[in-house]
Amino acid sequence: MLALRVNRKRAAVREVAKPAANNETLVRVLLSGICNTDLEIARGYAGFNGTIGHEFVGVVEESSDRTIVGQRVVGEINAGCGKCELCRAGDPRHCAKRTVLGIVGRDGAHAEFLRLPQVNLVPVPQTVIDEHAVFTEPLAAACGVLERTSISRNDRVAIIGDGKLGLLCAQVAALSGASVLLVGKHSAKLKIAARRGIETATPKQAAKRSRQFDVVVEASGAAPGFALALDLLRPKGRLVLKSTFHDTTEIDAARIVVDEISIIGSRCGRFEPAVDLLSKGAIDIDSLISEEYPLRDGVHAMERAKTRGILKVLLRP
Amino acid sequence: MLALRVNRKRAAVREVAKPAANNETLVRVLLSGICNTDLEIARGYAGFNGTIGHEFVGVVEESSDRTIVGQRVVGEINAGCGKCELCRAGDPRHCAKRTVLGIVGRDGAHAEFLRLPQVNLVPVPQTVIDEHAVFTEPLAAACGVLERTSISRNDRVAIIGDGKLGLLCAQVAALSGASVLLVGKHSAKLKIAARRGIETATPKQAAKRSRQFDVVVEASGAAPGFALALDLLRPKGRLVLKSTFHDTTEIDAARIVVDEISIIGSRCGRFEPAVDLLSKGAIDIDSLISEEYPLRDGVHAMERAKTRGILKVLLRP
Repeated sequence: MLALRVNRKRAAVREVAKPAANNETLVRVLLSGICNTDLEIARGYAGFNGTIGHEFVGVVEESSDRTIVGQRVVGEINAGCGKCELCRAGDPRHCAKRTVLGIVGRDGAHAEFLRLPQVNLVPVPQTVIDEHAVFTEPLAAACGVLERTSISRNDRVAIIGDGKLGLLCAQVAALSGASVLLVGKHSAKLKIAARRGIETATPKQAAKRSRQFDVVVEASGAAPGFALALDLLRPKGRLVLKSTFHDTTEIDAARIVVDEISIIGSRCGRFEPAVDLLSKGAIDIDSLISEEYPLRDGVHAMERAKTRGILKVLLRP
Repeated sequence: MLALRVNRKRAAVREVAKPAANNETLVRVLLSGICNTDLEIARGYAGFNGTIGHEFVGVVEESSDRTIVGQRVVGEINAGCGKCELCRAGDPRHCAKRTVLGIVGRDGAHAEFLRLPQVNLVPVPQTVIDEHAVFTEPLAAACGVLERTSISRNDRVAIIGDGKLGLLCAQVAALSGASVLLVGKHSAKLKIAARRGIETATPKQAAKRSRQFDVVVEASGAAPGFALALDLLRPKGRLVLKSTFHDTTEIDAARIVVDEISIIGSRCGRFEPAVDLLSKGAIDIDSLISEEYPLRDGVHAMERAKTRGILKVLLRP
């Protein structure tokens, strides 16, 4: 089968053996999405070599549970050991021995087939088209903000970063009824949020609203975004760090203590709330899809995904 | 009256005019405590010039409310504007226009008299002696950790720093029934906690317990303490920053996101829970008192408070 693989910081589409299900479930991939993490892995992040990709929708091809063969599914990307305290508590996302689809110790989704434990798979309702279902993983990450802090309709919320993650976070936060400001530099991207009734601003405009926000979500992944996020927070405000920067960042510890700020890390979210929002048509996904390529053009597609102004690039095996 | 004052980074005891009550309450100070913040102010922190000191117990000398004259009191140190959103919600601790006793725009407690708004004063039960009541403010700061995060009996809690604040935080955390480890470098100070059944360790010993704690309280005020605190936290753990460092600190943002850690600033706490614990004799205060001096020896007392191994130094007007 074809697979988009990274080896020693080089990405290439190759012919590889179709995986065996073993004790897991074999999924035929219908569509996969290129995430910024894929681009970072190709630059050497996480030291991963193998098939990349962790956003997908597919069909169960082989399973020891015959009843699910043929079912359309998406899949949670963390596969735990099943035995540790965290796994037994039903949350393998932080298992120390976890593998992560296309990121840590497990081949990923930019391929004709992938395998995952059956417990990771979530059925896709018929009303959700493939092009929307493939957004379950990033939308779950946006919904994951609400697993880490509450947002109520009285909260003033700012989202920093108008990339895919920021646009999803802004839409999810707005569904809570809170007043939401999306801060970004790209007018075309900001317009996607504006069409959903979300207020938008450039970083310069936002900086005038220092100390006015209850919750700020940092989704730009850049140090200036982190500094702006801190500045926008009111005393006792909550800063949700949503995107990893791969550098140490300077923080003013005295500011955090004196203003009693909380900085809250947030990574993966549960899939069910995301599938639920997709099935309700509550999120504008169509505006987030920029281009689609056949899997064999995966390397070119990754170049396109790096291009300024481009949002989601999809791959079809 | 006598007052211990800082002017342009020089501390001196001086004769100054006794303050008028005006619309506030005049308190005759019985005993005041030297806090590390006093030492930092004398080094130029917060740019404060005036009478320092914010830990005290006293007697109401003058008030428009005659019923409280003669009452023994302690006092919350933040005086808000009374009009802003935060003040109206009953919490002036973050009022942008607040004055702070002996720290911001308001003469402090190392004096024969001080004044505070009546709303700031909390009566001291008769069973609480002056030497314990003077610890209300720092004990409230320790209790303040529980205003910012919950600690339950199933939590594994580490406190970094065996100074006065760390010793108070460890005792407060232990009362929740949680298993508590106090980490510090001074065996005499660690023994104070050990006598209360609290486990203790040196930083080197603690470092072997990486990723094992649900809650870590950083009360050392030093960058190595912050790094150790992060290292001890399990995924989804909570780091309470209790002491201000007056430097920027480098943080590994990716660690916070990937492990979904929360960093929670904590400054002042409410006085009632602290007075309650003192009245119940639930905290070992006696072991925290190192020395007492007359107010006129305030400068010498500050030197003593800086000395390694010394815990609380009290001043008696």
